[in-house]
Amino acid sequence: MRATLLYGAGDVRVEEVPDPVLREPTDAVVRVVYACVCGSDLWPYGSLAASEHGFRIGHEFLGVVEEVGSEVPGLASGDLVVAPFMWADNACGYCAEGLHPSCRNGGFWGAPGVDGGQGEAVRVPQARGTLVKLPVGEDSALLPSLLTLSDVFPTGHHCATTAGVGPRTSVTVIGDGAVGLSAVLAAARLGAERIILMGRHEDRTDLGRDFGATEVVAERGAEGVARVRSLTGGHGTHAVLECVGTEQALETAFGVARPGGTVSRVGMPQYARLPLDAGAFRHNIRLVGGLAPARAYIEELLPDVLDGVVEPGRIFDRTLGLDEAPDAYRAMADREALKILLRP
Amino acid sequence: MRATLLYGAGDVRVEEVPDPVLREPTDAVVRVVYACVCGSDLWPYGSLAASEHGFRIGHEFLGVVEEVGSEVPGLASGDLVVAPFMWADNACGYCAEGLHPSCRNGGFWGAPGVDGGQGEAVRVPQARGTLVKLPVGEDSALLPSLLTLSDVFPTGHHCATTAGVGPRTSVTVIGDGAVGLSAVLAAARLGAERIILMGRHEDRTDLGRDFGATEVVAERGAEGVARVRSLTGGHGTHAVLECVGTEQALETAFGVARPGGTVSRVGMPQYARLPLDAGAFRHNIRLVGGLAPARAYIEELLPDVLDGVVEPGRIFDRTLGLDEAPDAYRAMADREALKILLRP
Repeated sequence: MRATLLYGAGDVRVEEVPDPVLREPTDAVVRVVYACVCGSDLWPYGSLAASEHGFRIGHEFLGVVEEVGSEVPGLASGDLVVAPFMWADNACGYCAEGLHPSCRNGGFWGAPGVDGGQGEAVRVPQARGTLVKLPVGEDSALLPSLLTLSDVFPTGHHCATTAGVGPRTSVTVIGDGAVGLSAVLAAARLGAERIILMGRHEDRTDLGRDFGATEVVAERGAEGVARVRSLTGGHGTHAVLECVGTEQALETAFGVARPGGTVSRVGMPQYARLPLDAGAFRHNIRLVGGLAPARAYIEELLPDVLDGVVEPGRIFDRTLGLDEAPDAYRAMADREALKILLRP
Repeated sequence: MRATLLYGAGDVRVEEVPDPVLREPTDAVVRVVYACVCGSDLWPYGSLAASEHGFRIGHEFLGVVEEVGSEVPGLASGDLVVAPFMWADNACGYCAEGLHPSCRNGGFWGAPGVDGGQGEAVRVPQARGTLVKLPVGEDSALLPSLLTLSDVFPTGHHCATTAGVGPRTSVTVIGDGAVGLSAVLAAARLGAERIILMGRHEDRTDLGRDFGATEVVAERGAEGVARVRSLTGGHGTHAVLECVGTEQALETAFGVARPGGTVSRVGMPQYARLPLDAGAFRHNIRLVGGLAPARAYIEELLPDVLDGVVEPGRIFDRTLGLDEAPDAYRAMADREALKILLRP
């Protein structure tokens, strides 16, 4: 089969790799119907040292079960399924607490010996716990929105729920990428009273308004902080959803948090140390969030996607074939496209 | 009257200063019965640049009301009162949310124009909101424990409550200073199942055991982290109460936190940037705490102190006269004494 590999910064190739086969009785093999490129894929795409061996990449996919091991009850060949961005047994103590990224028997797609999601097929470890069956056909128009259940929509939801977003919460969302916009959608779905979106790409912030943003702030850094403060009578907002992952984004996040407020971070951290001024301590500002337990939220978010109450798939603005994956990376890195579907 | 001033690192003087008088109708004047030295006073004591002008210091005191302004209902001359370590109106929106350090009309003792707590008397701004009347006499043996309501006991309580400590919570407390021991006491009072105290001063950790610590870890840094992990089957504890304020303490805190756990910080931050490794993100470890709203907790903690259910005053291991304040600072900085009462 063909799959996407990353050989170093800017060097994405689609190559022939061995077909996946069942290795463990808990495995399934899934033929990929849709995959996509994630903003977090762009970090290694921008910085990975060149290597003779490519790394399998991609962690969001939706597809049809082709084969299941003997210990995968509840799934059968032909089922349409979505996979969260990490595989997990959904049964251990941590998973029971909704901490799937800490699953004792789970891991990352594309790790050594594990397929990436951007390929024609994937061997799925811990398939019983990992995969969620979808009650639609392979031709459903909902597939793009259902694919967001892999990562960006639950990640936005995680960001908002861990920040305690609900009715009467004022929210700032930092970042107008796919996760930022998903966080806007999630915050609106949870009833947030006010959602200030910080972003400077007008086509993206327009979609953010459609998703529920009540205001847009295009300024960044100190200027952006001042603008949010001025919009909120000097107070800042109760919740700040940090969807970028840079040090500057975190600084901005603490800058716009209201006393007693919460910064929730889901942007993949590109920092090893967090700027934390004396104000964050004095004003009891919390830091929550982390790698989202996407699997924990899929059943909760699925009905609203199926009913069309939310349309998170609107973040996809282009569809390319799998062989065009190198173009997809380039277009997203150049900010030509927001998020690209790959169709093997 | 006489009061304590800090002129620079290691330079504490007790000097004659003007007697406090009412300036605002919301003021009261309190004659100090007991003050004390705080671990946080030791930071400027260790590092303040030498100055010609001394800075009034001290933020914990208990005393007798001498005079009240016209807008201080509920308090009268002769009342025994305790003051939290910040003054606040206890009426604004932030105070109503229990965020007294963010009070729009509050501030710090010893700030320009405001008396410090280590003196014979104190002008108390926002006296109605700040002071809490104590139902005992000036000769009560409970006064040392009641004085801890100024700061260290509510600070320990804040650390534990914001970390969500309750029955079935496993807790690590970092630091065997007065705040660390108060955090042990607070965690035990809230029913924590297990309390691991990290500290290496045996006399202090012995008191920690009396206060409810179930285990003591004397190792520090990576060794200390490994020890706590080994005591907890590799998992770490649900709550980590950081009562030191150094970068190393924070690193240790994240190192011993269980996936999905909470680091609560109340040690006065001696860092501007927080070490946060990838594990903290992957495992969804929260950071909470901050400057404690001591005032918010006094009524809640007072009954247990009055009933002798808890004896937080046991952290005081020495009493000196106000004129001996320089000795008190030296003894605490040299770790000869844990926490020293000053009796004007």
